[in-house]
Amino acid sequence: MKNRLYFDTTLNEKAHMAYDAIMKEKKTIGYYALPEQDITPIMDYCQTIPAEIKTIAVIGIGGSSLGAKSVYEFLKPVEKLTRKLYFFESTDPINIKNLLDKIDLNSTHFLVISKSGTTVETFAIYKYILSKQNNPTSFTFITDSGSALEKYAKEIQANVLHLPNNVGGRFSVLSVVGLVPLALCGINIQSLLQGANSIKKSFFEEGYLQSILLKKALFYAENHAKYHINCLFAYSESLKYFCEWYVQLWGESLGKKQRHSAFHVGLTPIGLIGPKDQHSFLQLIMEGTRDKSVTFIQIEDFQDKIEIPNTSLPHLKSLDTLNGLYFSELINMQCNSVMEALQEEKNIPLDSISIPKIDAENIGSLIFYYELLTSLVGELIDVNTYDQPGVEAAKIILKEKLHK
Amino acid sequence: MKNRLYFDTTLNEKAHMAYDAIMKEKKTIGYYALPEQDITPIMDYCQTIPAEIKTIAVIGIGGSSLGAKSVYEFLKPVEKLTRKLYFFESTDPINIKNLLDKIDLNSTHFLVISKSGTTVETFAIYKYILSKQNNPTSFTFITDSGSALEKYAKEIQANVLHLPNNVGGRFSVLSVVGLVPLALCGINIQSLLQGANSIKKSFFEEGYLQSILLKKALFYAENHAKYHINCLFAYSESLKYFCEWYVQLWGESLGKKQRHSAFHVGLTPIGLIGPKDQHSFLQLIMEGTRDKSVTFIQIEDFQDKIEIPNTSLPHLKSLDTLNGLYFSELINMQCNSVMEALQEEKNIPLDSISIPKIDAENIGSLIFYYELLTSLVGELIDVNTYDQPGVEAAKIILKEKLHK
Repeated sequence: MKNRLYFDTTLNEKAHMAYDAIMKEKKTIGYYALPEQDITPIMDYCQTIPAEIKTIAVIGIGGSSLGAKSVYEFLKPVEKLTRKLYFFESTDPINIKNLLDKIDLNSTHFLVISKSGTTVETFAIYKYILSKQNNPTSFTFITDSGSALEKYAKEIQANVLHLPNNVGGRFSVLSVVGLVPLALCGINIQSLLQGANSIKKSFFEEGYLQSILLKKALFYAENHAKYHINCLFAYSESLKYFCEWYVQLWGESLGKKQRHSAFHVGLTPIGLIGPKDQHSFLQLIMEGTRDKSVTFIQIEDFQDKIEIPNTSLPHLKSLDTLNGLYFSELINMQCNSVMEALQEEKNIPLDSISIPKIDAENIGSLIFYYELLTSLVGELIDVNTYDQPGVEAAKIILKEKLHK
Repeated sequence: MKNRLYFDTTLNEKAHMAYDAIMKEKKTIGYYALPEQDITPIMDYCQTIPAEIKTIAVIGIGGSSLGAKSVYEFLKPVEKLTRKLYFFESTDPINIKNLLDKIDLNSTHFLVISKSGTTVETFAIYKYILSKQNNPTSFTFITDSGSALEKYAKEIQANVLHLPNNVGGRFSVLSVVGLVPLALCGINIQSLLQGANSIKKSFFEEGYLQSILLKKALFYAENHAKYHINCLFAYSESLKYFCEWYVQLWGESLGKKQRHSAFHVGLTPIGLIGPKDQHSFLQLIMEGTRDKSVTFIQIEDFQDKIEIPNTSLPHLKSLDTLNGLYFSELINMQCNSVMEALQEEKNIPLDSISIPKIDAENIGSLIFYYELLTSLVGELIDVNTYDQPGVEAAKIILKEKLHK
């Protein structure tokens, strides 16, 4: 993975303090340790799921589904996966019925994932599915150790797996929450962790990413009032769900009241897919209010070499310049053209990330890169990156409505 | 369709001037007339596509695909459609190969849609597909009258349809651009237009929407500097692509330099889906910088009645309050809970839209509502709502790269 910043900033005392704070919280916040975990227990668990199981269905929402979905959807088009993976992540009845139409209950294993063990959406869906499939061996439960859900699972003699309780939902993709569904589909989770670990090492062992990540986080924090929208513009349809994962990670971690003030702060995340969104959002970046920074992601080699044929169309000769080009060259040329056009403008801070190809290692790197960046920015804008107190009010109101 | 504003604003001279400007531009801007068009020519054209054609594939990007996609994806889960519809809208090679794997070339009719007739992405893909299927009767071209593409189509003796040239791409869903693919799939386009027309009448014939739309647009314009992010929070998975369409419409229409100043202005659109994004973006709305207005969309009756069974789970009795509830009640209860929680906060302007059910008429209403709102806000923030000069620079750079 390469990352190049097209803006400059000088590392200062604040940045060094943030680095020290990260070094300290590394001892208590669980996600930092995940790249080096031993995956033997997960692989052993996967062996217990019979080969007749053709489909894995996650029942979970937010942090319990977005991470695995982003990796699965990234790899699905290019890798031969052993099982299909579906996500029940909405209380929309049309969506639930549609998903059920796609799966055969007898060859599906359900992963019910809820950190707290009491997520309303997850249990509404679980209860419905249970009325159609009530064999406990068709379910595995993933939850915090000691939760009511664990007790329930034990009572019905179903499988339970624990996520480390110092790993928050939106930082849990490299824990059992993401690794179990992915491994069950035949995705190489060791490579995924290796990719994450290479970023971890580069940051903590003074590799090239250390100063880049610090500079980027510092720039975002220092210019918080001016550039309060961060766009992630990924030139690959396969990164669509990675963008959704990033939106959750960034929005829910950084949108907070400050720890030491009454200020509401936060950087608004926006996920974009190129070249499609050149025909949608680019105009706003280019000519709208100059309140956005943009990070481009490119895939250097799409491998699947398909070429634009050498066809000349009458009356459309101007398009002959496309002839003989690989689509992977074209899409990256489009990305570079947009970057160059934006560079000619003032007040649009850019950086670019490129990964060599579409594989588990590279998506692991992207994940850990964004987790580290989020932690750094959170520290520098003085918020608690790991809580989400703002979602409680609506939950309490819903509970009251349900009691009536 | 109902729309209720939870903020107040008093209509003033600016609002009346904007209304007058809309009345005036209605004579030259083409989209206003679309709800009342005669669809006979489109239905006649559809009769020429043989019954053996099982799949329709749009080759188009941005305004040429997002509108039809938003309607198709909204109706697909609930209506019996006669054909499948796919969209080739990216130069991503993995995406192109994936889509081609899904279709049978001999039972597919391609709609090549490009207003200008020279969209790079569209022709790169078209040339590639032409190398696999070179029968001119398998293609229909939709473009501006007189474009080079029209000449080409005539030369190869393929079908050509024109979009009115005073209808811009992102306002074209109710023209041939959207209606042809939708009608070919068996969607009731007359109902779609009726839904749009009901909104048009309510606005122009002093129905209840006139003052609501004016107030909403005025509030957004007057508070542009404070609330420069607009979130559309739709409680239905089926509205996912409607949100993408809204993002293009809003972002590309309103992100501009002002007509009478050097200011960069624009309101940043964000599409959200509930309840999923309660677990992602809600924290940022609730506790982050107070720079966002939020519009909620609800579907009153999902019709597909599925119920949460009366199951009591050991150790999880607290979830018994869900028992016996329809999922459609639950999802709307969740939406109402979030709205109530946000109302208790200051500085989060809200409004809510509800539509009775998922059908062509209602999505037609939503489309025209958002088009009118966009035109009004554009007028009130002093931009040309219908151009997109900011996307040209990247196109010129790409052209230079292609020439090398």
